[in-house]
Amino acid sequence: MLDTLLVNIGQLLTMDQEGPVRGQRMGVLPLVERAAIGIRNGRVAWIGPSAEAGELEAARRLDCGGRLVSPGLVDPHTHLVFGGSRENEIALKLRGVPYLDILHAGGGIHATVRATRAATEEELLQKAKRHAERMLSYGVTTMEAKSGYGLEVEAERKQLRVVKRLREEHGFDLVSTFLGAHAVPKEYTGQPRAFLQYLLELLPAIRQEGLAEHVDIFCETGVFSVEDSVWFLQEAKQLGFGVKMHADEIDPLGGTEAAVSIGAISVDHVCGASEEGIRRLGEGSAIAVLLPGTTFYLNKEHHAKAREMIAGGAAVALATDFNPGSCPTENLQLVMSLAMLKLRMTPEEIWNAVTVNAAHAIGRGSDAGVLAAGRPADLVVWEAPNYSYIPYHFGVNHAALVMKRGKPVWKRGDFACDI
Amino acid sequence: MLDTLLVNIGQLLTMDQEGPVRGQRMGVLPLVERAAIGIRNGRVAWIGPSAEAGELEAARRLDCGGRLVSPGLVDPHTHLVFGGSRENEIALKLRGVPYLDILHAGGGIHATVRATRAATEEELLQKAKRHAERMLSYGVTTMEAKSGYGLEVEAERKQLRVVKRLREEHGFDLVSTFLGAHAVPKEYTGQPRAFLQYLLELLPAIRQEGLAEHVDIFCETGVFSVEDSVWFLQEAKQLGFGVKMHADEIDPLGGTEAAVSIGAISVDHVCGASEEGIRRLGEGSAIAVLLPGTTFYLNKEHHAKAREMIAGGAAVALATDFNPGSCPTENLQLVMSLAMLKLRMTPEEIWNAVTVNAAHAIGRGSDAGVLAAGRPADLVVWEAPNYSYIPYHFGVNHAALVMKRGKPVWKRGDFACDI
Ligand SMILES: [Zn+2]
Ligand SMILES: [Zn+2]
Repeated sequence: MLDTLLVNIGQLLTMDQEGPVRGQRMGVLPLVERAAIGIRNGRVAWIGPSAEAGELEAARRLDCGGRLVSPGLVDPHTHLVFGGSRENEIALKLRGVPYLDILHAGGGIHATVRATRAATEEELLQKAKRHAERMLSYGVTTMEAKSGYGLEVEAERKQLRVVKRLREEHGFDLVSTFLGAHAVPKEYTGQPRAFLQYLLELLPAIRQEGLAEHVDIFCETGVFSVEDSVWFLQEAKQLGFGVKMHADEIDPLGGTEAAVSIGAISVDHVCGASEEGIRRLGEGSAIAVLLPGTTFYLNKEHHAKAREMIAGGAAVALATDFNPGSCPTENLQLVMSLAMLKLRMTPEEIWNAVTVNAAHAIGRGSDAGVLAAGRPADLVVWEAPNYSYIPYHFGVNHAALVMKRGKPVWKRGDFACDI
Repeated sequence: MLDTLLVNIGQLLTMDQEGPVRGQRMGVLPLVERAAIGIRNGRVAWIGPSAEAGELEAARRLDCGGRLVSPGLVDPHTHLVFGGSRENEIALKLRGVPYLDILHAGGGIHATVRATRAATEEELLQKAKRHAERMLSYGVTTMEAKSGYGLEVEAERKQLRVVKRLREEHGFDLVSTFLGAHAVPKEYTGQPRAFLQYLLELLPAIRQEGLAEHVDIFCETGVFSVEDSVWFLQEAKQLGFGVKMHADEIDPLGGTEAAVSIGAISVDHVCGASEEGIRRLGEGSAIAVLLPGTTFYLNKEHHAKAREMIAGGAAVALATDFNPGSCPTENLQLVMSLAMLKLRMTPEEIWNAVTVNAAHAIGRGSDAGVLAAGRPADLVVWEAPNYSYIPYHFGVNHAALVMKRGKPVWKRGDFACDI
């Protein structure tokens, strides 16, 4: 006896394969046409042809009307928790004021740090919850969330507690990353190494209290050097954290190579990665997490070289980079369209990048991103006839029904179903 | 006694001004802070400070919680009615196959023409209705819809009848434009003038049956010349139609100047408009309808020169250009973000471009795009604290409640209100 049975699925993307998916393999999608999927106790219990599902008993049955069904999407890079918003900087940006000048005037990330420090935990929780709910409505059932707008012990811990509460009290499948090393705070101007030392001292308690699984750093000209980043992440790794790096977003500093070398779980942005960096991505275990929404919103054209990375054997994932400065959007479906338009990724590569590979980029490879017997029943019923339709028809929300552990958690207002 | 009273509005964009709004004037927005708006018989009956609204009697009252309220958006350029979709062309485009080769193989617009001709009127109606409903959900309460995927008498009339039925039977505020001259159909290859002659003969009946208000033509290298376009539109104008032109999308052919000269109500695309064309836009009465979503989706960077147009005194509007080939999106809010990023328009210019000026671009200047006593109560309650927030936070749907003639026609699932 099943709890729920979805029948008459036009295309069921199972993504059932050994991941992460690398290189040419990213061009192939495991799927079942005219399929059905049965759910029991929040997990996938049965997948097969819809024609054979008639014999199965189920408490609830949903006719998907030929629609596409996929695993819930995974967003492996977001800055979910922050105070305030930065629409007041539009006028400055349009007048061409350089970001560094906005920073020096107390704007940019400093403005978000001020607002995040000033907000109560409850205010941050309610705001982050709204953003997470919107992600869910766009089909994202697992997401990462980074700290990094506190830049001092209490405000960083406040951000991390919000993530923990969203997970434990509100049921979001959130993976927590400590990004205290997001910027050098004003208090440490000119002393990045001293600030990292300060952060290192916080890590044991953060680990002990289960406030973060991963540690990340912003390795960029004028922020943290490759040398400092490597030292910091190696220390974090020895404490048992998975490590990640914001690397080579603009300049080819060699962060990509360094992150691969130290066994980072992911290396993110990598728009400016050198040929050597791209070669190393094809060899190491790190996932390249590409963030085309950010390049787009910063109005730049130096997009990550996804084609070369995939040709070189890399495992590529996609994420929103949701944040109030360089990428204010929760819509991972739009990022899929940007990956098609700007990274020249195929629909197959894109789907691998927002499911299996995204899950591996945050240490959820054995849990999220795949629909197979025994796996969590996190899935999306799409208002779409096939998987290519999602990146093609851009900038809207194609989700009709989002299920988490077999339960509907979001539904389009006009989607008629009683489960 | 009012039917409905909305109080506690953080910013009420009334847009109450003489339109179309040109040049520098586009940088100013008529608005009321901490406002209330009263509705009676589907029209705005009262606008004033929220503090004074306590005395007013109303059957229904909605506390907007400090949210932004604006006129319903107007989308003045859409190809709403068509058969099929074109996600199957993604692979060809990614391989770099030129559009002309896709056309010669029967793809591109030819594929949509085949699908549109093959579809029944009922099928087209149901499909266009879904797209129009999505536009409405994004805050668009008035939209234009062009024919142009039939390219022969019966299929063109079928498209126009669908628009008429959506208006008359389903309550959409749709403005119908005849775009039979969208492409030269295979049957008339090499004979554009003969095809235009054929179309001209259909116009009197189309006008008599109220199937279209405006006539449009695609003036572009390899499609219809400036000379043929001017001749065709002048004939249409003499029959009483408003006239519009798809002009200078890529090459500066002089379509912009020609369209202004013959008194077109709008001239659309204009990415490649010459300096002279831009100068003429500042002088004539035509609205420049900019479609940055199309340039974006075609992956080109030759965006319309909005800054020069506005500096030259032009009245600029924005539209989705919703269509299955070059811009498959119904999300006018995303187009507002693209206008900020790619056209460098300010939030004030953008709001004028999707309300007042968009209304003027389709002959609805005295009806849509403005909230003032006596005007139709078409409005949007936004999940946003101010008007700049909408283009800033991109790629999602910020509408909380959409009202048409004072009645709620769309509501976010989690927006708590009982009106
Ligand atoms: Zn980031
Ligand atoms: Zn068009």
